Amino acid sequence: MEFNEFFVQGMALLGAGIAMVAGFGQGIGEGFAAGKGAEAVGRNPEASGKIQSIMVLGIALAETTGIFALVVAILLIFVKG
Amino acid sequence: MEFNEFFVQGMALLGAGIAMVAGFGQGIGEGFAAGKGAEAVGRNPEASGKIQSIMVLGIALAETTGIFALVVAILLIFVKG
Amino acid sequence: MEFNEFFVQGMALLGAGIAMVAGFGQGIGEGFAAGKGAEAVGRNPEASGKIQSIMVLGIALAETTGIFALVVAILLIFVKG
Repeated sequence: MEFNEFFVQGMALLGAGIAMVAGFGQGIGEGFAAGKGAEAVGRNPEASGKIQSIMVLGIALAETTGIFALVVAILLIFVKG
Repeated sequence: MEFNEFFVQGMALLGAGIAMVAGFGQGIGEGFAAGKGAEAVGRNPEASGKIQSIMVLGIALAETTGIFALVVAILLIFVKG
Repeated sequence: MEFNEFFVQGMALLGAGIAMVAGFGQGIGEGFAAGKGAEAVGRNPEASGKIQSIMVLGIALAETTGIFALVVAILLIFVKG
């Protein structure tokens, strides 16, 4: 058995799939933020605009995680796969 | 044994399956948001419109996670698989 | 031993199975929503219609997770398996 360029390509594509598992934690975190946002609006509906602003800001920051994983996966697929 | 193009295809398809595991966390997060939405409406039914707005917005943002994984899986299946 | 089209099919089918692990988290999340819905109706039975509406909407959104995984698994089984 000898490792060759096909092994490299195969591992790149497997790695692309594994990278996307990052979305696992991102999904939990962003859903938590959405749930707490709904809870806060229920308690204080007059503040809904401010609550929405901070929730969207927080989720946007958490979103960077998934974008990093997406960039790596795309690179693995199209540059090395 | 030699690594060849079939190995590459096999890894691409295995990677596509693994990418979808991202949905695991997304399911937890979005379900949490749904539960908190129901709880908030139970406490303050008059604010149900505002609660629903922020809940749906938050879930839509969390949904991007799964869409990234889906895009990568589809690329792996049809471009490299 | 040489990698051939049977290896590709095997990996496709293994990937299809792994994709469905997403349902694990979806089950937790949607169950949480159902539980919170029941809790909210118990506290405020007059709002049961509104609580049910937002709970069903939230669960339907969380359900998309599992549908994505199902689509990928079906593709892997019937297109590549």
